[in-house]
Amino acid sequence: MDELKLRILTDGKNLGSGILKVDGFINHQVDPELMDACGRELARRFANVGASKILTAEISGIAPAFATAFHLGLPVVYARKSKPITMPDQIFLTLAPSHTKGRIVELIVSPEYLGPEEKVLIIDDFLASGQTIMGLVRLAHAAGSQIVGIGTLIEKRFEGGYEIFRDLNIPIESLAVITDMSEGKIVFAN
Amino acid sequence: MDELKLRILTDGKNLGSGILKVDGFINHQVDPELMDACGRELARRFANVGASKILTAEISGIAPAFATAFHLGLPVVYARKSKPITMPDQIFLTLAPSHTKGRIVELIVSPEYLGPEEKVLIIDDFLASGQTIMGLVRLAHAAGSQIVGIGTLIEKRFEGGYEIFRDLNIPIESLAVITDMSEGKIVFAN
Repeated sequence: MDELKLRILTDGKNLGSGILKVDGFINHQVDPELMDACGRELARRFANVGASKILTAEISGIAPAFATAFHLGLPVVYARKSKPITMPDQIFLTLAPSHTKGRIVELIVSPEYLGPEEKVLIIDDFLASGQTIMGLVRLAHAAGSQIVGIGTLIEKRFEGGYEIFRDLNIPIESLAVITDMSEGKIVFAN
Repeated sequence: MDELKLRILTDGKNLGSGILKVDGFINHQVDPELMDACGRELARRFANVGASKILTAEISGIAPAFATAFHLGLPVVYARKSKPITMPDQIFLTLAPSHTKGRIVELIVSPEYLGPEEKVLIIDDFLASGQTIMGLVRLAHAAGSQIVGIGTLIEKRFEGGYEIFRDLNIPIESLAVITDMSEGKIVFAN
């Protein structure tokens, strides 16, 4: 998606060690017009997978998942990283290492909102090593839900996450696929 | 806003001790159509305050702030509760007690995205005791920004937050104002 790629080249920063700073329009400050356009495009790409619900992880996944959910007309569930007092005692919980936090985080979903009848589209901001998304996959499987697609704004293909999900045999779409960030570069696929 | 009030009465739960569970459409699962309508209404109410930026707190503030920001055509900044590695060393940080988490949380904003030139509209899901929003007010003041309004989806008037912000002399708007949650009731103002 050219609009996103252009913005990454203009306002993104390659901080080295594979870290892409997009705090100015995705991760801390959000450009709602760009995010809406990304949601619209993800919705277009997953229009025919039969999703009944979108699943993401707080925090950075919320905006892209919400934008996609709006354009697909589907509810969105965001996995919590700590259990609020409003959640029942019986929950789905998994652990996932967080790249940006440098520690293990919990991902928690209430069985009230994820069950065997759901066809789940997973949306997140980044597909990098795939650890967070793998956590969401485990949560969906624990709930008995079927996973029908994985969509992200930005994929860092060189971190290998894409390969992990290949054998799920579902569509995996990212709006900007980066193949190389060595030596300060930001190189997109194709 | 009738649509939100009706949904609270239909799907919300009064868990006692002033705790309103709205996990099914706001805080864990989000109804994007309802949230978009709420954002549109908040945007309408704050159309003339001259805001240049929206400020919220992760996590539950992101969806309503994003929806409002989209309809106002403004960028939205969400204060982080932990400092990501992409953030500079010099930051604005304040502490706020979290009602739902039962502990003190940090609220962090990068000076890259909040400065003296900004007119800030604060948006959050709840106005209850006002502690989180007061934290956002402190962050905005630390950055030298002017605060031009406070908007939330749901206000629990009986928890006193509204009174705290009165002497800021800015518009304070909530789409559903609850005056009484005693004995399992959910009573709206007017």
